[in-house]
Amino acid sequence: MARITDPAILLPRARNGDRRALARLITLVENDGPVSAEILAEVFPGGGRAWTTGLTGAPGAGKSTLTDRLIREARSEGNEVAVVAVDPSSPFSGGAVLGDRVRMQDHIDDQGVYIRSMASRGHLGGISAATPKVVATLDGLGFPEVFVETVGVGQAEVEIAGNADTTLVVVNPGWGDSVQAAKAGLLEIGDIFVVNKADRPGVHETVRDLAQMLELGTGPGWAPPVIATIAATGDGISELWRAVRRHREHVAATGDLEAARRNRLTAELESALLVGLRRAVRSSVPPDTWDDLTKQVQQRRLDPWNAAHRLLTALAERTEHDNDGGQ
Amino acid sequence: MARITDPAILLPRARNGDRRALARLITLVENDGPVSAEILAEVFPGGGRAWTTGLTGAPGAGKSTLTDRLIREARSEGNEVAVVAVDPSSPFSGGAVLGDRVRMQDHIDDQGVYIRSMASRGHLGGISAATPKVVATLDGLGFPEVFVETVGVGQAEVEIAGNADTTLVVVNPGWGDSVQAAKAGLLEIGDIFVVNKADRPGVHETVRDLAQMLELGTGPGWAPPVIATIAATGDGISELWRAVRRHREHVAATGDLEAARRNRLTAELESALLVGLRRAVRSSVPPDTWDDLTKQVQQRRLDPWNAAHRLLTALAERTEHDNDGGQ
Repeated sequence: MARITDPAILLPRARNGDRRALARLITLVENDGPVSAEILAEVFPGGGRAWTTGLTGAPGAGKSTLTDRLIREARSEGNEVAVVAVDPSSPFSGGAVLGDRVRMQDHIDDQGVYIRSMASRGHLGGISAATPKVVATLDGLGFPEVFVETVGVGQAEVEIAGNADTTLVVVNPGWGDSVQAAKAGLLEIGDIFVVNKADRPGVHETVRDLAQMLELGTGPGWAPPVIATIAATGDGISELWRAVRRHREHVAATGDLEAARRNRLTAELESALLVGLRRAVRSSVPPDTWDDLTKQVQQRRLDPWNAAHRLLTALAERTEHDNDGGQ
Repeated sequence: MARITDPAILLPRARNGDRRALARLITLVENDGPVSAEILAEVFPGGGRAWTTGLTGAPGAGKSTLTDRLIREARSEGNEVAVVAVDPSSPFSGGAVLGDRVRMQDHIDDQGVYIRSMASRGHLGGISAATPKVVATLDGLGFPEVFVETVGVGQAEVEIAGNADTTLVVVNPGWGDSVQAAKAGLLEIGDIFVVNKADRPGVHETVRDLAQMLELGTGPGWAPPVIATIAATGDGISELWRAVRRHREHVAATGDLEAARRNRLTAELESALLVGLRRAVRSSVPPDTWDDLTKQVQQRRLDPWNAAHRLLTALAERTEHDNDGGQ
């Protein structure tokens, strides 16, 4: 198994529940390149059936414990569950205290749960680009429930969680937390708001404040509920899961789901195009040229627009040269 | 004059205070293309001396009346002032009630004030790309004070205002307004917060709420002040102008200014590069190909990453073909 990197062998195995084959496939997808493209071409057309639930919020808000509880809810309905953890503070990603780790390991013996950490992928740009591919792979391989957990701090991470069918924004009791969520742009992306650790003081005020904030400027359509939970004990979890289901029914019935998924796919195409174009420029233009032009711009010897034009011209000439040279 | 489009003639005239030559130059810069590049190459190296002040906030917050007052403050120091209005609701951009229009026209007889509206430029993508070039031109031609007024609604407009040396975020009294500002991401970009229309009830609460929100998660460095103004009467304006000056001294002294400007220029280079690359793809790949691939992705017949790869390949082949054909 350790040497198999052929998707033609790995794919049927993964479809049959072989978790090591699945893990290998995901690594190949993450690593990009021709094999990644081959796998995605294979699994993508069969996808679109998974329900993706994004969870985001500040570190320590209890996202992982909530995810853990939601895994149980989904499993109790008989569904297989995949979890993608992009959160460096998540126990799923290995950055947690012992108690969390132990609890998460409960699922290790459950063949119906597959947990994948994206924390080791280095810089966030790589994670942002790789996560949608990994989610598409899990979807295409037949997982009916996919959870994506990110920290609601950087814009890229917020976007990842916002690119789910249902996005949960997790805060804790206290005025500051909901304001921080607002500042981080989380009010805009949440379909459901969770005030977790509801055994702490101030939970009613936070629920009320959030509800008031959300009412402002809200148009017709889905009105995001605010739900108090204590993930550690399970309080409020079944209500939360029912809200996820209600949101699912709402967007499916109104056509919002289809429109949102179409928009996300178009956005992903544009994003992939820009990644490819950036790479083409970086690899075609000598680093000296790039660095020198950047320096000239920073020192105001050359304006950024003419600098960009020179880089694009250098790219076109390089392409021409490559063609001449038969490379 | 109506037919002169030669920068070699227009530039010296504009530098000598000819406002029609200046207006013509800005139109040429906005229209993009080789002449725009020529003008920018000419004026950019002499720039970096203007102080740019961005104003943003919801429509109706009183940004234009504030800008009007700040123009007077700057003029009273003897400085020439340029205003770039990207706000469709701004009287500077022509979308205002009569009272506002009349007041703005006070400056029409003042040769020391140049007002440029960007509202007629059509879609916002064009405005976003053109505004930094227009600001750079005004800076390069020697205006020591440049105000940029945008509506704090769309991300692009917020970014434009945030790309100033000092950014003012304007709200009105009332709890909802400061929350809306938070939701729009304005708390992150403001150097100074203005609670305008301070003759309305609730001003003290709004100042306090904003100050509390701003304190959360604030590190060392500049602490954004919250200043109450009544732009209609001039109340608080000199305090506001002093705050702009204080911010200027602060960032100049700490080196934050130099770093911020360097970062903005690098970001502008990258942004110009992406605009150019997008244009190259759009013009090189037949629209049919583009639309067909997008449709295939939306219908899940093709994954977005392989679709992007095909578009990039088509672009490279087209470049090759063009070279062969000697175009």
